[in-house]
Amino acid sequence: MDPRLQAPVGAARRALAGGREDLLVEESPLLIDVHGQTLLTMRTPGRDEDLTCGFLLAEGVIGDLDELEELRCTPAASEQPAAARVRLREAPAGLARARLARTHEIRSSCGACGVADPQALLADAPALLPGVPRVPAAAIATLTAELEARQRLFAVTGGSHGALLATADGAVLAEGEDVGRHNALDKAIGAAARAGVELHRCVAVLSGRAGFDLVVKCLRLRVGVIVSVSAPSALAFDLCEAAGATLVGFARGARHRVYCGADRLT
Amino acid sequence: MDPRLQAPVGAARRALAGGREDLLVEESPLLIDVHGQTLLTMRTPGRDEDLTCGFLLAEGVIGDLDELEELRCTPAASEQPAAARVRLREAPAGLARARLARTHEIRSSCGACGVADPQALLADAPALLPGVPRVPAAAIATLTAELEARQRLFAVTGGSHGALLATADGAVLAEGEDVGRHNALDKAIGAAARAGVELHRCVAVLSGRAGFDLVVKCLRLRVGVIVSVSAPSALAFDLCEAAGATLVGFARGARHRVYCGADRLT
Repeated sequence: MDPRLQAPVGAARRALAGGREDLLVEESPLLIDVHGQTLLTMRTPGRDEDLTCGFLLAEGVIGDLDELEELRCTPAASEQPAAARVRLREAPAGLARARLARTHEIRSSCGACGVADPQALLADAPALLPGVPRVPAAAIATLTAELEARQRLFAVTGGSHGALLATADGAVLAEGEDVGRHNALDKAIGAAARAGVELHRCVAVLSGRAGFDLVVKCLRLRVGVIVSVSAPSALAFDLCEAAGATLVGFARGARHRVYCGADRLT
Repeated sequence: MDPRLQAPVGAARRALAGGREDLLVEESPLLIDVHGQTLLTMRTPGRDEDLTCGFLLAEGVIGDLDELEELRCTPAASEQPAAARVRLREAPAGLARARLARTHEIRSSCGACGVADPQALLADAPALLPGVPRVPAAAIATLTAELEARQRLFAVTGGSHGALLATADGAVLAEGEDVGRHNALDKAIGAAARAGVELHRCVAVLSGRAGFDLVVKCLRLRVGVIVSVSAPSALAFDLCEAAGATLVGFARGARHRVYCGADRLT
């Protein structure tokens, strides 16, 4: 095997397929416990701190990492799944608790808010800030090339998604890879936030489709330029248009399609 | 546009992208209400009856469609999402209620059962039955060609997943397309069950990756041959191996990789 094509430790496992060795992406549970309220998410092991921080931010459970008092991650052991125990400076009450409860559903479904109205889905997402980058159209190809080059787990397993947060000129500030699209983005968001990156100045680059779930995560963090290698959904388009964000789909090589916010592409 | 490439009514919407018309896959909520216990799932509208039946079966909430007393689907209206109201002959109690509660999580996470042990994940899946088909290796290419030919929504949006249930010689018994991989499979399962198809004699063909969530759905319904166009996860492989099922990945044209259960490929 090409030595450059090594998967991150613990993120892939060898298996025999048709008599030859193959690498399979790992998929195992992480229990996230916030003041006794728990949920299990399936993820690729590794970077559980980034994943948990990104998850809490992107789902709106916390607005800032300063709200974290303690985050303790422990690996899986015998019958116990890996766990991330979270303590906030103030116990989550009211809205944050409701948001945490909603996170069970937000992956494939959304909360009880007026989902027939795209604007209502954005009710808890703040407005975009000044500083959302302008992106040279030629930089889109640079960004997707960067994403592909960094998808080491995908290169060896073909079974993972990737996400980047980058500057408009293609400098990568944070990245994530995971069996789950949303986890890949959460890992990138968590890493960026922990490194003090100003998220609203970032471009998000996604290996998978831009469904509403990923777009809502970006918009909550005021990431106003979203580039997907694949298709957006109609709801994701509605959300970006309502938020005044830029949504680019089918970004492959020199080609891409701009769905809204074209004024930011220079 | 090629008239053959028409999306199912209501499943896609026109949008302008870069000055030209584009079709985006629809993604909107369906509220499933089982005796007052509700969950919202994001899906592509259309075939909500198939989706709901497949979902209830594949998540183990019911073991047979006979357990349904009533299923009433209503489309979205003003602020109300589309709804599927389900009444069972016996109100769900104990295990079935727990399974329904778990379904919030099963998409991206699994229930509280001993998830560190793949065997435990299968604890509520019945053993495979006699009658699991043997598949001529050459039929794999036929099956994936059938899948591609039937992905009408994908052909026009690039944003949906597809699933087939078919016989070993390539006759398609049921199909599903949806913005969500799991929904595509649920639609196919629901349609097959409603048509009286013996699911344990079927091959499942999936356009996306074979993650644990899709594999568990198949195994619960005793579908013992699973063919994915893309990669399996390590956990999905463990589950199929433990169940004695056949798992084929990267099925593209004449090529594919057999991960386990190779004895069924002739």
